[in-house]
Amino acid sequence: MADRPVKELDRRTPLEVACKPSLNQIAKTGICGIMDVISPGLPPGSDTATLALLGYDALKVYSGRGALEAIGSGVEVLPSDVAFRCNFATVNEDLIVLDRRAGRIVNKDAAKLAESLQKIKLEKSLDARTLFKNTIQHRAVLVIRKHGLSTAVSNSDPGKVGEKVLDVKPLNNSSEAKLTAKIVNRLLREFHKILKDHRVNKERVKRGLPPANMILCRGAGTIPDIKPLSQIYGIRAVCIGATPLVRGVCKAAGMKLTDVKGATGTPQTDYMAKAKATVQALKTHDYVLLHVKAPDVASHDGNLKQKIEIIEKIDHVLGYVLENTGLESTYLAVTADHTTSLVTRNHEGDPVPIAITGPYVRRDDVGEYDERACAKGGLNRIRGRDLMPILMNLIGRAKKFGA
Amino acid sequence: MADRPVKELDRRTPLEVACKPSLNQIAKTGICGIMDVISPGLPPGSDTATLALLGYDALKVYSGRGALEAIGSGVEVLPSDVAFRCNFATVNEDLIVLDRRAGRIVNKDAAKLAESLQKIKLEKSLDARTLFKNTIQHRAVLVIRKHGLSTAVSNSDPGKVGEKVLDVKPLNNSSEAKLTAKIVNRLLREFHKILKDHRVNKERVKRGLPPANMILCRGAGTIPDIKPLSQIYGIRAVCIGATPLVRGVCKAAGMKLTDVKGATGTPQTDYMAKAKATVQALKTHDYVLLHVKAPDVASHDGNLKQKIEIIEKIDHVLGYVLENTGLESTYLAVTADHTTSLVTRNHEGDPVPIAITGPYVRRDDVGEYDERACAKGGLNRIRGRDLMPILMNLIGRAKKFGA
Repeated sequence: MADRPVKELDRRTPLEVACKPSLNQIAKTGICGIMDVISPGLPPGSDTATLALLGYDALKVYSGRGALEAIGSGVEVLPSDVAFRCNFATVNEDLIVLDRRAGRIVNKDAAKLAESLQKIKLEKSLDARTLFKNTIQHRAVLVIRKHGLSTAVSNSDPGKVGEKVLDVKPLNNSSEAKLTAKIVNRLLREFHKILKDHRVNKERVKRGLPPANMILCRGAGTIPDIKPLSQIYGIRAVCIGATPLVRGVCKAAGMKLTDVKGATGTPQTDYMAKAKATVQALKTHDYVLLHVKAPDVASHDGNLKQKIEIIEKIDHVLGYVLENTGLESTYLAVTADHTTSLVTRNHEGDPVPIAITGPYVRRDDVGEYDERACAKGGLNRIRGRDLMPILMNLIGRAKKFGA
Repeated sequence: MADRPVKELDRRTPLEVACKPSLNQIAKTGICGIMDVISPGLPPGSDTATLALLGYDALKVYSGRGALEAIGSGVEVLPSDVAFRCNFATVNEDLIVLDRRAGRIVNKDAAKLAESLQKIKLEKSLDARTLFKNTIQHRAVLVIRKHGLSTAVSNSDPGKVGEKVLDVKPLNNSSEAKLTAKIVNRLLREFHKILKDHRVNKERVKRGLPPANMILCRGAGTIPDIKPLSQIYGIRAVCIGATPLVRGVCKAAGMKLTDVKGATGTPQTDYMAKAKATVQALKTHDYVLLHVKAPDVASHDGNLKQKIEIIEKIDHVLGYVLENTGLESTYLAVTADHTTSLVTRNHEGDPVPIAITGPYVRRDDVGEYDERACAKGGLNRIRGRDLMPILMNLIGRAKKFGA
């Protein structure tokens, strides 16, 4: 939700101009502040930001995006596995990328193609258990299971149309990195062989659609070596969010993942369904993370009008949460996982606003929930990884340090 | 610039009483805060402060003053060299210090004496390449080049008149520290032999001036092992400052050093020349550090009136910078590298005010640039090493952490 001042809004931010009575109520009855999700000036990714908001030291524990996205998509990843984010893409005969998303291929086609990419048999020295799964549209994950792999390998995805698919290279001199690069390169070659003559692709070409004849991969990662929240704080925690990456981080933190019908991780998500699921989940859990991806999407698209509308939609369903949650015994924190600028269309390192309401917070004078108003609040300036201990302290789950 | 409240000013600070329309304009159009340059309560030196303001973790990378001062004076220092800050001093026959600055000896005399101190030949086990260079007045630097040296040696400078020149001692049990102490003691003895009968000193005595017959040394250091700013942020950075120590830190950070005619590092510096050089440098660089030493000098001298005048002079030339810099595309941050108290005449650990103006900062309600007003600003309380990431984020040079 957080943004920078925008010229079209007379140097105010979308949060400052949006109509948001529920967010303001939380600020008014709560304690406010600003928060550097990782550290001042550092633009967080969605994965590192979520790790921090769950209380982990992202700078220490982050181990790449691939495995988080995989487990967030329901693919099992073991601690020694290396996982990649993948795209179905369209390439020509010279392996020049024509479309990095294969025309945003529909799930049905992608699923059929993915099915053919199971159980690839490589020569014995490279043989590994592999798992390839399509997720949403052109997106997919690849998990490689073998002893002695490394995440220190480059991407095959050149990141741009018109460039050739890259060879995956070891990023250090270890035998593990060299082995991993070799396996990935061989796998991607096998995938290409299978895909280029695939029945589904032949049909796509007939229908005038770009064939999904190549798999691009990037973001080699392992699951982070972190203790589950249940073990750290003794809480039952649940995630209500549709974005695979956010779900993956929550899964790595040992949280339950709830599937909400109509929750899509897009601006067209069913906001109220998520709010209702949150109220339900609060009845049986100590901690609920409700994540809405939509405002970030609007900023990435540079869509000012949509961003304000989304904030107002979020505010509307927060009204439902406020009405249906016993705030005499429940704490509610509202924040953003990072600033996304409508101007640069990127994640930025500016701090995010934070407001916490509930029975025993020390209320301050802040009456509005936005980047500037919250900066005057009683929390002052905190770090993302402080939030979880602050909340756990409020609900009586913090352990005393010392005697 | 930063100071503590002064009784004579009715418990206000020099910044609070000075007439400073340009500083106030920066506060008014910007985002303000207070900053612990190193950490709360810790008085920074000019060297550690500048390291922090350039984004380095001074507590980890600081490696003594000597080498920084040397490279800031244009002396080449290699990573394995050990360098010292030196003073030309006057001692009697018993090596009791009579004047730590040899009557603030003029540059011309110091240069002639320094010339005689080159290429000292010691016995083979102690032989090293040495470089001795006078800088401003009584100040000089000594660089020792030999394999296996250490910075863990004490000072020969007793710091006070009336005390005997100290033997340099190893500060730990390493053979490196012992060797270094031995070499320095032998060198200083040779220097004394040459200086005491030197023609220049004989003439000085005839003219009633104290002879510069001894070299005092302190602050053994190596150049810090830090990555240049160009590598960390991909920026072209330049320093406009005359103080050798500040220049040395900037040099260690890979910054270009600009020589400005009339810039002296004293209260008599040509303020406008530095402001003009800054505006020029901004045309071809991504980052310009403009450093003015004068307010610190006034505080060290306990000169309240002068400190206020200097602040007003700085404000005047900042007006020129504001008028001649396109603030629709440039960010301008104003701060101090430390608090220097007019009362204690020392660097103090009180936080310093900071204000940043530019196109996309989140403006706050602060309208004046001083220690107390800025404490109410939207930056809240940050650390010195946060400043560079915050600025790099604003100009789009921060790299995202995570995906």
